[in-house]
Amino acid sequence: MTKKKIGIIGATGYTGSELVRILKKHPEVDIEIITSESRSGEKFSEVHPFFQAIEEQKLKSLEEIDQYDLDLVFLALPHGVSMNFVKEHAGKDFKIIDLSGDFRIKPKDVYEEWYNTEHVFSQGIEDAVFGSPELFADKIKTAGLVANPGCYPTSAILASAPLLMAEYVDSKSIIIDSKSGVTGAGIKAKPTNLYSNVNDNFKAYGLKTHRHTIEIQNILEKVTGNNVMVQFTPHLLPVDRGILSTTYLRPLKKTDENELINIYKEFYADAPFVRIREFPPAIKDVKGTNFCDININHDPRTNMIIIISVIDNLVKGAAGQAVQNMNLMFGWDEKTGLTQIPVNP
Amino acid sequence: MTKKKIGIIGATGYTGSELVRILKKHPEVDIEIITSESRSGEKFSEVHPFFQAIEEQKLKSLEEIDQYDLDLVFLALPHGVSMNFVKEHAGKDFKIIDLSGDFRIKPKDVYEEWYNTEHVFSQGIEDAVFGSPELFADKIKTAGLVANPGCYPTSAILASAPLLMAEYVDSKSIIIDSKSGVTGAGIKAKPTNLYSNVNDNFKAYGLKTHRHTIEIQNILEKVTGNNVMVQFTPHLLPVDRGILSTTYLRPLKKTDENELINIYKEFYADAPFVRIREFPPAIKDVKGTNFCDININHDPRTNMIIIISVIDNLVKGAAGQAVQNMNLMFGWDEKTGLTQIPVNP
Amino acid sequence: MTKKKIGIIGATGYTGSELVRILKKHPEVDIEIITSESRSGEKFSEVHPFFQAIEEQKLKSLEEIDQYDLDLVFLALPHGVSMNFVKEHAGKDFKIIDLSGDFRIKPKDVYEEWYNTEHVFSQGIEDAVFGSPELFADKIKTAGLVANPGCYPTSAILASAPLLMAEYVDSKSIIIDSKSGVTGAGIKAKPTNLYSNVNDNFKAYGLKTHRHTIEIQNILEKVTGNNVMVQFTPHLLPVDRGILSTTYLRPLKKTDENELINIYKEFYADAPFVRIREFPPAIKDVKGTNFCDININHDPRTNMIIIISVIDNLVKGAAGQAVQNMNLMFGWDEKTGLTQIPVNP
Amino acid sequence: MTKKKIGIIGATGYTGSELVRILKKHPEVDIEIITSESRSGEKFSEVHPFFQAIEEQKLKSLEEIDQYDLDLVFLALPHGVSMNFVKEHAGKDFKIIDLSGDFRIKPKDVYEEWYNTEHVFSQGIEDAVFGSPELFADKIKTAGLVANPGCYPTSAILASAPLLMAEYVDSKSIIIDSKSGVTGAGIKAKPTNLYSNVNDNFKAYGLKTHRHTIEIQNILEKVTGNNVMVQFTPHLLPVDRGILSTTYLRPLKKTDENELINIYKEFYADAPFVRIREFPPAIKDVKGTNFCDININHDPRTNMIIIISVIDNLVKGAAGQAVQNMNLMFGWDEKTGLTQIPVNP
Repeated sequence: MTKKKIGIIGATGYTGSELVRILKKHPEVDIEIITSESRSGEKFSEVHPFFQAIEEQKLKSLEEIDQYDLDLVFLALPHGVSMNFVKEHAGKDFKIIDLSGDFRIKPKDVYEEWYNTEHVFSQGIEDAVFGSPELFADKIKTAGLVANPGCYPTSAILASAPLLMAEYVDSKSIIIDSKSGVTGAGIKAKPTNLYSNVNDNFKAYGLKTHRHTIEIQNILEKVTGNNVMVQFTPHLLPVDRGILSTTYLRPLKKTDENELINIYKEFYADAPFVRIREFPPAIKDVKGTNFCDININHDPRTNMIIIISVIDNLVKGAAGQAVQNMNLMFGWDEKTGLTQIPVNP
Repeated sequence: MTKKKIGIIGATGYTGSELVRILKKHPEVDIEIITSESRSGEKFSEVHPFFQAIEEQKLKSLEEIDQYDLDLVFLALPHGVSMNFVKEHAGKDFKIIDLSGDFRIKPKDVYEEWYNTEHVFSQGIEDAVFGSPELFADKIKTAGLVANPGCYPTSAILASAPLLMAEYVDSKSIIIDSKSGVTGAGIKAKPTNLYSNVNDNFKAYGLKTHRHTIEIQNILEKVTGNNVMVQFTPHLLPVDRGILSTTYLRPLKKTDENELINIYKEFYADAPFVRIREFPPAIKDVKGTNFCDININHDPRTNMIIIISVIDNLVKGAAGQAVQNMNLMFGWDEKTGLTQIPVNP
Repeated sequence: MTKKKIGIIGATGYTGSELVRILKKHPEVDIEIITSESRSGEKFSEVHPFFQAIEEQKLKSLEEIDQYDLDLVFLALPHGVSMNFVKEHAGKDFKIIDLSGDFRIKPKDVYEEWYNTEHVFSQGIEDAVFGSPELFADKIKTAGLVANPGCYPTSAILASAPLLMAEYVDSKSIIIDSKSGVTGAGIKAKPTNLYSNVNDNFKAYGLKTHRHTIEIQNILEKVTGNNVMVQFTPHLLPVDRGILSTTYLRPLKKTDENELINIYKEFYADAPFVRIREFPPAIKDVKGTNFCDININHDPRTNMIIIISVIDNLVKGAAGQAVQNMNLMFGWDEKTGLTQIPVNP
Repeated sequence: MTKKKIGIIGATGYTGSELVRILKKHPEVDIEIITSESRSGEKFSEVHPFFQAIEEQKLKSLEEIDQYDLDLVFLALPHGVSMNFVKEHAGKDFKIIDLSGDFRIKPKDVYEEWYNTEHVFSQGIEDAVFGSPELFADKIKTAGLVANPGCYPTSAILASAPLLMAEYVDSKSIIIDSKSGVTGAGIKAKPTNLYSNVNDNFKAYGLKTHRHTIEIQNILEKVTGNNVMVQFTPHLLPVDRGILSTTYLRPLKKTDENELINIYKEFYADAPFVRIREFPPAIKDVKGTNFCDININHDPRTNMIIIISVIDNLVKGAAGQAVQNMNLMFGWDEKTGLTQIPVNP
């Protein structure tokens, strides 16, 4: 059978590199074109030297994509740039998976408020399916445009959706205390990403205003049909990859830990990448993989529910989940090309 | 004027080493004796080689302390061991600052429940003053036995006491999400402390059961006179030193951020080691020092208060706060010997 | 075609875990049995929880291996223990790849001097083939017992063999300054492996006496037929995985960098895992892979040759190279199951 | 007695910050002015927030220094900029300690070749004294302009000078394999300093061409009076601070380790900051201090001498050594203000 032809738009960042790492070994696709406006003409392996002898194709300019008969493109572009690409290529024959934030938030004015940017393509916002396969698999299968979830939202939504959808917990007092590795902030050289500012260090940032707050709230409202109020606090970990979210939920009824665990096990019974863990998982347990590991706790002393969830922000939080979405869109087994084993330690 | 004569009981761990680092440069004291049962006879600088040419005295056995005319001893012993020392030496001429958990919790049965150990010296529990100088300076000044606070509790209590004591926030829904460096777990070689288990990694631990939960709750109840309910979740950071606590509080009245900041500024107006920070502080900002940096936030969208507090767990969370207590006990300026500047980066 | 049946002897360490990571995805083999004396009866995924949902088989005791009709076993045992296994199972139907140091050094008395242990199985020493596929592929193909190279020696031998075998450099003044990640020291909880002793730190160790010195020298003498003298200095890096060796060689003739590079390119023309790099490679460039990246320099000012080589100590320095040897022993393409792409960052 | 008045020129980098950390607690000086062209008008503690409540003075522009009656200025400026300052202020009443490379290399054309910059002030090159107190204390005491040594050269020169000056080793085959923390590369946000490029990583750089090569060689030639040939290879460690240099030397005569150790002990008998260590020192052993720890080895098998030396690159390798020079220039005890104890871990 012929393989599907794939384009990767934007190749210099971590997401682009991670897409190549995964797709290069995916049995059903060929990477036809990788683009970069700043480095076009150079080899992909010049930009990411560890790909020497693995991926030696030359980077192209965006303008050249029409020369390729593509089935699907992944957009690894900054938000604000993605929307222009999508607008311009709406109606083309290829499907699009956008890894930016541009098509995740509905309606348009909420996006514009939190991103402080005018959105140029309302139709895209309406058409886009939020690419959380554990929640929206059916819609993803037929989508032409998938908005791939943000990294923090992936860890937070998978942690709280089962109890919120069962109306088991108070939807107005959700606290999500998240901790992310540095790659979540992108590859640009800025002071906050410098080794000596991150190493042996730790801090909170983006309190009250981080854009993933509205993404989490927006999606949880969609799946529950209720108003949801989320307090989200991101922190910067001295690690390369990985997000751990500690989610605090108030039960609306009497409960115990075993009952809660069963709810999660049932909810994720058919989800190949969600592992229910008996003990609190560590970030390295999912490193390099598409797993989301979840640990469920109920404290009878305080009657509080505490959910620990971990993902690799570049895989389940970006490139891996995007490939999982592609698998659904082409009718393949969800796991195709995503059976990596953690590199640990 | 003659200097005070000090003993350090327990020298092989991080706390013992840190006490020497600070006391060695304290202008009012002499370290008369440092003990270690496992290494007695060896030089302190053989156990901690970076002290070569700095502190070359030999380690003694505990039994030898009666040969010294001591004014004060610091106990850097494991909990369960400290209580025996205190019981045995009650009534001696020297004051005691105990850095273990043995005398922090009242009453005895609560200690015994959370520490799963019988307490051998009830009188000590009654006599001991909790060594939080920002809250109990007057009692510390005249105390014979000070129970030096735990590391997590130091960061958590200083973060929430001002609002709880003002009855400004709900005392029953306090969430403290804490992240600590590895030295908090002690110097023993165990799998959880191995480099490859910690490096580039992050996890939660001790959910629902960590002993510092009751210490925090106990002290907050004492200073407020109200029932307090604390949800405390510790996490292990890949850093040597430092604790960052993110505390979530529900206001009981309409408020805004400036009002909150003013409450903290007033509350800590005379506290030389508490710095109110405009932006979220990082762990390295206090490394090697006795500072506790606090950042205050109110989110008008959710009406939640979020307090970020950071300390060096070995200094303000252990040895430094102990020396601060000693300064009060001897009537010296609280800052004596504690004006270290952060080594950053 | 039926798959080959594989046993992994010793499962609790990093090498055992890494063998499973690689073999689990190898298309030509089945892992029939994994043993551990200390944890037999437990599941492999209880010992290494990140394998949950990936490898759930139970660990067996060594005694049970006769119940399996194995084609090959990997020994991930400590040196001194391996030799007993090999002695006891000599003549069995399965091939053996030993990842310990027990069969790398010839003759027996040199082993005994450097390892300070009596060797119980001389015949094994004589029969064993040193498993460096770039140097001994033909012998490996027909071997029944392969002594898999040490991690430091792998990086050092690949860096210097091309010039030594061409008699291009002085074999008596080789300096190898090596730096290794912590996993090279094994999984045991000992003070030198504690996070706080390694993090943000760096030191040399094993000067003059490290056992890999004699392994490097021994093999280089074998491939050159000349006396060789190696000064080897290992250092401990604050990283999980990876070795970088900086090798200093004195040319015997007038040379320049391009000539040297050509020698390496020719020497490794058919070696799929050696990448000649234009710029000095970093450890992360090979993380999780079987690559050895080599960078060649000649300093005309001093007439010194400086070779930089990097490997992942757990892959090319252990489990990966072992699988590469297995591929040769079964007549498969050397790269089978070894096409991992670096997880970077 | 009145204190000396000090200016710090250049405050935004690590060296400027470290000078303030040390001088702020120096009993004989007052920091009169701290300058920064890019941040003048802001407070020093806005640029380095961990100085809040410690150093709150405002940054000035360079032009304002004439309003201060300074006794000495420290130049924490980039090379190429320092020389202009020195030229312009030659003949002023204050002494100068320049922490850049501009006045370390003699003669001018050698500087210009290795720095690829025209030097604007030959007289300065001639007048400047190289600020290595262990080698040039007498000249430093009367100097008006001190060229503070580079970080790598400090570790390398102290390691090899005793044997070279005794004509005990071959001066033409010195190999210095050095490993440095990231702060050595400065505070600028550039890709090589990004967390994800450094963390869990390691690489060599600047092979054959690093400017510190000529500085080491130049000074060793000066103190020995012989031609010296140095092969110097720097590497980038994933640590904030610290340099470890492994120096390989060929003895010219029969020797043993004890004899060598005695040579070092005698040579450094009056050097308060050089500690001769019995076992290989680690970088953390000197963190935050002005110590240089040296460990001496002779390998009888190869007849090679291997010296391990460690410093904190920001202290003994920059700001601390500069203060040590100041102490000499003002006739104070060398140790004044430099008795910090390592913060370890």
